[in-house]
Amino acid sequence: MARVVVDVMLKPEILDPQGRAVKGALARLGLDGVTDVRQGKRFEIDLEGGLDLERSEQVHKLAEELLANPVIEDYTVHIVDEGGVRE
Amino acid sequence: MARVVVDVMLKPEILDPQGRAVKGALARLGLDGVTDVRQGKRFEIDLEGGLDLERSEQVHKLAEELLANPVIEDYTVHIVDEGGVRE
Repeated sequence: MARVVVDVMLKPEILDPQGRAVKGALARLGLDGVTDVRQGKRFEIDLEGGLDLERSEQVHKLAEELLANPVIEDYTVHIVDEGGVRE
Repeated sequence: MARVVVDVMLKPEILDPQGRAVKGALARLGLDGVTDVRQGKRFEIDLEGGLDLERSEQVHKLAEELLANPVIEDYTVHIVDEGGVRE
């Protein structure tokens, strides 16, 4: 079994009101020196079998089309476990 | 400057309707063999100065109190960049 993690974060130039609210709350709760907080999404995808090059490319394509909005978000794909198949 | 990443995911026994919807969509878009998808939150926290042991513990405490709901969510804290200070 392979596991892929896709992290989706707002682009740095896009205002992040959720992150800003968390930043304010962290300061109020006593954490000093917080300069920035960004909040994004994390997807953990479990796949049957191994992750060959073709499938890995398919995951990248779907991350861009389905999981992220490339106009305002950046995404990163991490292969946590290749399921025993090397590319 | 230090950077800490906090990942917050629903506990495995908690139903994740968002993840389920993504799983269905990935299958419809042609990705075969998806056994499970979980959707969670990712917080990127930038801190002034270095991250010593005390501050690191404070981040852990606040992750549990503010960022995650420990009744239904698990969280992990990754120190991406210690800001030059070793613990």
